[in-house]
Amino acid sequence: MSEQALQYLTENRERLLEKLNHFLSIPSVSTDSVHKDDIKKAATFLEDYLNDIGFENVSQQDTGGHPLVYAEYNGAGPDAPTVLLYGHYDVQPVDPIELWDSDPFKPEVRDGRLYARGSSDDKGQVFMHLAVFEAIMKTEGKLPLNVKVCIEGEEEIGSENLYEILQEKKDQFQADFAVISDSGMVAKNQPTILYGLKGFTGIEITVTGPDHDLHSGMYGGAVRNPIIALSHILASMKDVDEVVTVDGFYDGIEPLSDEERKLIEQVPGEDFKAATGITETASEKGYTPKEHTMARPTFEVNGIYGGYQGEGTKTIIPTSATAKITCRLVPGQDPDTIQSLLEEHVHKVAPKGVTVEVVKERLSAKAYKVSPDHPLIQKAADSYTKAFGKETVYVRMGGSIPVVEWIEAIYKMPIVLLGFGTPEDRLHSPNESFPLDSYDKGMETLVYYWDSIKE
Amino acid sequence: MSEQALQYLTENRERLLEKLNHFLSIPSVSTDSVHKDDIKKAATFLEDYLNDIGFENVSQQDTGGHPLVYAEYNGAGPDAPTVLLYGHYDVQPVDPIELWDSDPFKPEVRDGRLYARGSSDDKGQVFMHLAVFEAIMKTEGKLPLNVKVCIEGEEEIGSENLYEILQEKKDQFQADFAVISDSGMVAKNQPTILYGLKGFTGIEITVTGPDHDLHSGMYGGAVRNPIIALSHILASMKDVDEVVTVDGFYDGIEPLSDEERKLIEQVPGEDFKAATGITETASEKGYTPKEHTMARPTFEVNGIYGGYQGEGTKTIIPTSATAKITCRLVPGQDPDTIQSLLEEHVHKVAPKGVTVEVVKERLSAKAYKVSPDHPLIQKAADSYTKAFGKETVYVRMGGSIPVVEWIEAIYKMPIVLLGFGTPEDRLHSPNESFPLDSYDKGMETLVYYWDSIKE
Repeated sequence: MSEQALQYLTENRERLLEKLNHFLSIPSVSTDSVHKDDIKKAATFLEDYLNDIGFENVSQQDTGGHPLVYAEYNGAGPDAPTVLLYGHYDVQPVDPIELWDSDPFKPEVRDGRLYARGSSDDKGQVFMHLAVFEAIMKTEGKLPLNVKVCIEGEEEIGSENLYEILQEKKDQFQADFAVISDSGMVAKNQPTILYGLKGFTGIEITVTGPDHDLHSGMYGGAVRNPIIALSHILASMKDVDEVVTVDGFYDGIEPLSDEERKLIEQVPGEDFKAATGITETASEKGYTPKEHTMARPTFEVNGIYGGYQGEGTKTIIPTSATAKITCRLVPGQDPDTIQSLLEEHVHKVAPKGVTVEVVKERLSAKAYKVSPDHPLIQKAADSYTKAFGKETVYVRMGGSIPVVEWIEAIYKMPIVLLGFGTPEDRLHSPNESFPLDSYDKGMETLVYYWDSIKE
Repeated sequence: MSEQALQYLTENRERLLEKLNHFLSIPSVSTDSVHKDDIKKAATFLEDYLNDIGFENVSQQDTGGHPLVYAEYNGAGPDAPTVLLYGHYDVQPVDPIELWDSDPFKPEVRDGRLYARGSSDDKGQVFMHLAVFEAIMKTEGKLPLNVKVCIEGEEEIGSENLYEILQEKKDQFQADFAVISDSGMVAKNQPTILYGLKGFTGIEITVTGPDHDLHSGMYGGAVRNPIIALSHILASMKDVDEVVTVDGFYDGIEPLSDEERKLIEQVPGEDFKAATGITETASEKGYTPKEHTMARPTFEVNGIYGGYQGEGTKTIIPTSATAKITCRLVPGQDPDTIQSLLEEHVHKVAPKGVTVEVVKERLSAKAYKVSPDHPLIQKAADSYTKAFGKETVYVRMGGSIPVVEWIEAIYKMPIVLLGFGTPEDRLHSPNESFPLDSYDKGMETLVYYWDSIKE
């Protein structure tokens, strides 16, 4: 079947790219309610496409939030395996818009890359799956396995409603295994099996002092400054050696073995400086940047604000200051425990004269790790190698995909992470893009993979 | 002369208050260009009023920014002393507007207080001077001394243009002494002579890491977080004992004598907790809140920002973080030296992997201190006591009025700070107000003061 489907993809390349561009041009930003109609439009695009391909029971399911696009293909018969395919059609906001070189919702090809919000995360990768299903259906008349498609519209805002639905509708989503394409390769054209993902949790700290902004001349010297208090708290949580200094934070983590250090060492490394513009990397003492990003937990302040932010000077002691913190966790760390440790630490070090409120992120996830030897993983590795002409590497990565942990926890099914993104895609940032050769070879990989499953 | 003038003020109280309300209803916010016409309106109000009273050479002088209202009264003759009266007609922004209980530009009396932006700082106090001049002119036909009126429209944005003009037009502003009513009393109805003001300086720190916001899962562990780096820098500048830990910061400061500590102790203290809503005061180790606010330098972070500030979570390592810092200085501290010390410290402690930029506040001022025994000060104290029926106290205060330092430095003339504000006025904050009995007694004080000068 592979050859005809690949030929179909080649012959229809221009038309399919146009169709993808149409999909990408819908500003399906999930976090902003002004885009509610666009979310609906993107879901309807998928609904129509799935119907056109020949899926059954295609629907936009009510989640309480943005709709979940669901569809089934049962034509492979009861003896064939069933895959649950997960993806998301919502995208991150585009701010700061002035840093984009082209309109984030007018896809544009420059230097072999398709620039658009969602081109890599995750509309582009979702589209590749549907185009491959179309190609197989058009050339073979049927798919080699049964498929349950689950494409949500709330991944970028935490997938909270999906979590409820996965727990409630167990029959609907039950399958033999799951495939998720919402990740990337360690380097462009370097086939990569992700066998570990980090977990995730977070807190928000608000330090409140006076009940109104105070004149710094009248009250400076009598009143604790909430921003300085927050700085002391944050500085006490991670030191300049990038070591998290919250008691118990590292408890229960399996030590990084020499073997795994070697595996990590062998992974073609991203040039962190070139990709990010930093002058020097910074990693946890005793670990290389690759080791830390892949296999050690992280602690980041994602945002901070308080007091006067305009131009020039306003001589106030502000009423409050807030910091948003998230951590990426590794196996052995429990998100709830970590949240409690962070909260206790904050209250312990908070200085007198201010009140400190800690709000815990509702959605957390444990880290995920599978055996690289699983047959479904091995078939994925072979398909990658066949399409990209290169040996597949096995890596753990710093990202978190909460749905991976949920599917594993609720359904106990193996999960194959078939990602095609590249480190240069600028996910969540201005100028997100996706390389068109990864798009082509990625679809080739999928054709080989579905073909290999029936064997 | 006093009695007739006081009677005039009583008889015309309602009309004058209406006139003041009209002045306060003009939203002369200097920092926001949408209020340019309002600034002009407020200046024109003053111009008209000064003409009506009988001042000469009344004009709105071009400053390059908002106009300076200038006027002269030379009718007291060449043998009478000349006073330079300084005030400002511009006001602070009103944000956050939702915290005001009434429209900041629709003056409203509640519980004996006049609520409006500028009622205390400084339109209300400027108006009191003009009303007193009106009362004396109407009842005596002339003022007991010559007057140069200088009311600027850029105090709340740093008085930068005034600084130039004071240097350029020395003949215009030269006088025998200056009077400024842009300050307050230590407690309502407690006559207060301000014999010391703090100086002022500031810097803005921007820590820059990656050249775009990074996905915290992909880069967390390889890249220094600019917000955490900034927190470490800030935490290293002032400790939890409220001691500034920048080398050399306290060098050259005259020690606080036991005598001065006693003077400060005797000043009726503000209830800092009640006035600000804090749970506990916080002051430099070894000093009381009153000692610190009045006589010790301060270090405040007025604002901070970086990364994601919206609702919920955005898992990024932000590209940068910025903090705005200002210090209030005491005699012995040189603003330029302090800026350099702060800058050196920041660069010294900045961690690797980020770049740190320090921008120095352009307008700084040294602290100001005069002898409480000066005859002009003693006359002011007597006038206060006569009007308020209470002994005058002598205090140093934490605020900075750069123009005080400039007038002293450029013109070497004695400066009398005749302030009538109260600690409850909420300057620069929502619900700014001014007590009407301070308004009445303040004008009485001015009548006595001008009367005493000719003696």
